[in-house]
Amino acid sequence: MDLRDKPIGIFDSGVGGLTVVKQIQKLLPNEDLVYFGDTARVPYGTKSKEAIIRFSIQNAAFLLKSNIKFLVVACNSSSSYALPSLRRLFKIPIIGVIKPVVKQAVSSTANGCIGIIGTRATVSSLEYPKQIKRLRSDLKVKQAACPLFVPLAEEGWMRHKVTRQVALEYLSGFKRERIDTLILGCTHYPLLKSVIKDVMGKSVRLMDSAYYTALEIKSVLQQKDLSAKRKRAGTCKFFVSDEPEKFAKIGKGFLGRNLKSIKEGSADV
Amino acid sequence: MDLRDKPIGIFDSGVGGLTVVKQIQKLLPNEDLVYFGDTARVPYGTKSKEAIIRFSIQNAAFLLKSNIKFLVVACNSSSSYALPSLRRLFKIPIIGVIKPVVKQAVSSTANGCIGIIGTRATVSSLEYPKQIKRLRSDLKVKQAACPLFVPLAEEGWMRHKVTRQVALEYLSGFKRERIDTLILGCTHYPLLKSVIKDVMGKSVRLMDSAYYTALEIKSVLQQKDLSAKRKRAGTCKFFVSDEPEKFAKIGKGFLGRNLKSIKEGSADV
Repeated sequence: MDLRDKPIGIFDSGVGGLTVVKQIQKLLPNEDLVYFGDTARVPYGTKSKEAIIRFSIQNAAFLLKSNIKFLVVACNSSSSYALPSLRRLFKIPIIGVIKPVVKQAVSSTANGCIGIIGTRATVSSLEYPKQIKRLRSDLKVKQAACPLFVPLAEEGWMRHKVTRQVALEYLSGFKRERIDTLILGCTHYPLLKSVIKDVMGKSVRLMDSAYYTALEIKSVLQQKDLSAKRKRAGTCKFFVSDEPEKFAKIGKGFLGRNLKSIKEGSADV
Repeated sequence: MDLRDKPIGIFDSGVGGLTVVKQIQKLLPNEDLVYFGDTARVPYGTKSKEAIIRFSIQNAAFLLKSNIKFLVVACNSSSSYALPSLRRLFKIPIIGVIKPVVKQAVSSTANGCIGIIGTRATVSSLEYPKQIKRLRSDLKVKQAACPLFVPLAEEGWMRHKVTRQVALEYLSGFKRERIDTLILGCTHYPLLKSVIKDVMGKSVRLMDSAYYTALEIKSVLQQKDLSAKRKRAGTCKFFVSDEPEKFAKIGKGFLGRNLKSIKEGSADV
């Protein structure tokens, strides 16, 4: 088989990475995709750097068995910690979800104040501030960890008054700092967009990684002459380490359509 | 070594099982203990029956390497699903945290209405209602899953207004049913006792498993002539699959004292 017609592999700690899948399918409709959600060990955002790296390597190794040509790390916590280790170990091109949205945020801020919300792991890694400062050292960057946002989204309380109160508490620092751009540094957070938007006000632009990551994938595939050559529509296979039914149910909200062909797989190597 | 002087093994998905350790140390000060907290895969309460059984078997196998004489499953989700599999596989005596508190609740309810709160896994297993009905089929039993209680406790929001609002929402059904006894069916929930107590009112008795489980351990050890014979104070070794420092920090609140000797171990077999 032509290397270019091999699938793109994508992993996340759970279901959130499907927002990235959705954008890839829009922008690159001919690409075959293989997705792995590590639902048995979710969440990653409360775990250590070492655990996140170990899990990420196992997930990548699992996807490589499907003969992927390209790896997308669709989890912010993994993108914060595991990219250097993955790139040391594996030969295929690998991208995470941080750099693409950072580029966009840096070019779109008007007042030079960018906020980032994410899991404890993502915020502790300082990866967002580092990447922003590398592009423009004059920008002001403020981060906040929002550990309750993922459980609130998974409870389905997208517009609940409790969610609003939690958001008010977590985001109060950003209001004082007058940021004009807020990066949603976790693939779950777009589900809470309406509450976050209400709390932050209309003048703050919310940015999530999914669309910009898909753009970056398209550009890297072209650069490396790895874009699919076939003409038929791409397929997508889903693997999870636990609860395929629950993944299908929650996943529908992230992907915007029904999920077919979900299999159980184990990333333990 | 005398079989009776071997350690008791205890596992939990994370830190909550330390409430059981605390009670064992009070009641059985001469026993050596080995604790395993599966902090790399926590939480269990949102995972499937199959995953919980698989993890529980791995945790038990890990503890058996320390030559334990007795196994305590200090996690409600594991106790709900994994005891039959564990007993089929391993020869040592094994107890969970459900039966001891159920016995107590059944004998202490005055109006015959018992409530149970727990994780989704524990509630879905129906293990509490089954065990209560087995002892007294005339009792009325009502359950509620409280998935946000664990993340709220881990966020340290023990008396936060958000926690009170979440409790009001989760517990409203119990107020209508006029239960007089509420079982805290998750080892994290005692941390939220004051909010739960406020919401339920003084007439409702809150019961958690830790003390009754320790009593049951004492009784089984005596029955089987397995109580420690030595006179010195028992020791306790702690193993976790991730983040020993965080475990030490949060664990202090559960154990009521500093934790020494925490090592990293992996339950993956």
